[in-house]
Amino acid sequence: MKNVPKKMTNFQPRDPNFREKVKDSFTRQKVMGELGVEINDLSPGEIELQFPYDERWTQQHGFIHAGIISTVMDSACGYAAFSLMPKYAAVLSIEFKSNFLAPAAGEKFRIISRVIRSGRTITVAEADAFALSSDKEKHVAHMTATIMTVLDNNSIQQ
Amino acid sequence: MKNVPKKMTNFQPRDPNFREKVKDSFTRQKVMGELGVEINDLSPGEIELQFPYDERWTQQHGFIHAGIISTVMDSACGYAAFSLMPKYAAVLSIEFKSNFLAPAAGEKFRIISRVIRSGRTITVAEADAFALSSDKEKHVAHMTATIMTVLDNNSIQQ
Amino acid sequence: MKNVPKKMTNFQPRDPNFREKVKDSFTRQKVMGELGVEINDLSPGEIELQFPYDERWTQQHGFIHAGIISTVMDSACGYAAFSLMPKYAAVLSIEFKSNFLAPAAGEKFRIISRVIRSGRTITVAEADAFALSSDKEKHVAHMTATIMTVLDNNSIQQ
Amino acid sequence: MKNVPKKMTNFQPRDPNFREKVKDSFTRQKVMGELGVEINDLSPGEIELQFPYDERWTQQHGFIHAGIISTVMDSACGYAAFSLMPKYAAVLSIEFKSNFLAPAAGEKFRIISRVIRSGRTITVAEADAFALSSDKEKHVAHMTATIMTVLDNNSIQQ
Repeated sequence: MKNVPKKMTNFQPRDPNFREKVKDSFTRQKVMGELGVEINDLSPGEIELQFPYDERWTQQHGFIHAGIISTVMDSACGYAAFSLMPKYAAVLSIEFKSNFLAPAAGEKFRIISRVIRSGRTITVAEADAFALSSDKEKHVAHMTATIMTVLDNNSIQQ
Repeated sequence: MKNVPKKMTNFQPRDPNFREKVKDSFTRQKVMGELGVEINDLSPGEIELQFPYDERWTQQHGFIHAGIISTVMDSACGYAAFSLMPKYAAVLSIEFKSNFLAPAAGEKFRIISRVIRSGRTITVAEADAFALSSDKEKHVAHMTATIMTVLDNNSIQQ
Repeated sequence: MKNVPKKMTNFQPRDPNFREKVKDSFTRQKVMGELGVEINDLSPGEIELQFPYDERWTQQHGFIHAGIISTVMDSACGYAAFSLMPKYAAVLSIEFKSNFLAPAAGEKFRIISRVIRSGRTITVAEADAFALSSDKEKHVAHMTATIMTVLDNNSIQQ
Repeated sequence: MKNVPKKMTNFQPRDPNFREKVKDSFTRQKVMGELGVEINDLSPGEIELQFPYDERWTQQHGFIHAGIISTVMDSACGYAAFSLMPKYAAVLSIEFKSNFLAPAAGEKFRIISRVIRSGRTITVAEADAFALSSDKEKHVAHMTATIMTVLDNNSIQQ
């Protein structure tokens, strides 16, 4: 394609402390600690997470369960979105859709998410999951997620 | 609506030992054991799973992470599909899509899945997740999943 | 399943003139007129649409194109949602996902949508499409759609 | 992100006549002609389509209906996938999911699709839709689609 437009603008974070905010919230997601997920890299509208293979999270063929891969992709999408939100906003997953491209077999897994639309109420983000073995990296899953900015925290309880 | 057609036919399992087959495979999904998921009920093309609240699986507000709810909904869809497959088939999640309808707050969670289309290669199933507290049950998530019947086991590795 | 909870509550429309409102908006969707879509039935949170086969809307095998079936399912979901919204709200499709269960071959097509979650900002609805031939009705597609209630009409332009 | 892996390999078409095959099938999709869709560009695993604004395809606010945008995105995904398939294969949409990022307002629309996973049976493709006005181009929609390679043509009728 000769003429592909740039889909991603350079995002400006609305909260200058977006790094601390994302890291604080990430630390409070107990499931991230349980899965051993770490933040590799973080910039406005983008995040990279990583976690190791652990047979506790496997399905019947010994691969990481599609839902566990989706758990990390969903957190990645949520935090890519959250990095662009104003100071007192909370983040809520409305929906996500995952495609599984290859078995999640590997020593560790790298998840990269980036925002593709950052609106006042609705953010759309994508994530890709890669399985890493000693010598290669394989694209194993793809997610599109719709995230809501919640300015009134009580709404989260509703 | 006066005239809603029945979407669900009475499914006939192609393998008379479908119950043992589903239970064996379910037991081999280590993540189901880790999350404490149990099979409440199983019939051809339908399954009900249940698991308890555990703060290890929570997101930043103390609710069960959307990805963990999706993990159990995906297994439910996979086993509803698997219950209708022929003897030597393996089951593979191609993709799923979840909508989150309310926070996953409760003492335990009930997931019900049923097949809506059972084809030779492609099965489509839905799942609904309900959060149970002492006195009430709330619909918290909905999934549609596309599942592939794999007759050649080597394909799973590809 | 012995004990499936009722997912659908009896919805109360927030606007007593919801029928006129839905029909007015439907008439302004020029694509509905172009496709020959008619409203068969309408109640709070539910709608049934119908349209005839026309080879202008076909794909390469002579079946109605999956996108055209999705166009009518999306309008059905939007109007099922709109029927429950307050007087001055506008309706916006955030996203939808369709599964295609069988070829859309038939003389006419019936689309039924119902709301599964009606929130202040976000509504989730499902739709099913059925192909009707002289003697039978076949389930050909299923959609889940996420719809936003827009109270500030300017937002639609953004 | 320092180290984003290339997701897209250089695809090798399995049928050297893939261009003619795609164009022949595209011409037989009557809905493409009806909407005025043209092929701008085609290479293995990638396609660019274009169509003009026409008020016949509008929803209630005068924008192109989300389902019509999805119709063209679905054809784009299908033909990006078809360009990589072997000679006697047919292409079938199993499911797709669209996110709507901005109103489809513009003079014409450009749709770009590329394959992200090309397997023996299952192909996954993405599409992006852009609205063009005199001076600018806006990203209005994003699709992920799952496409099946059908080698036995009779299966399409089932």
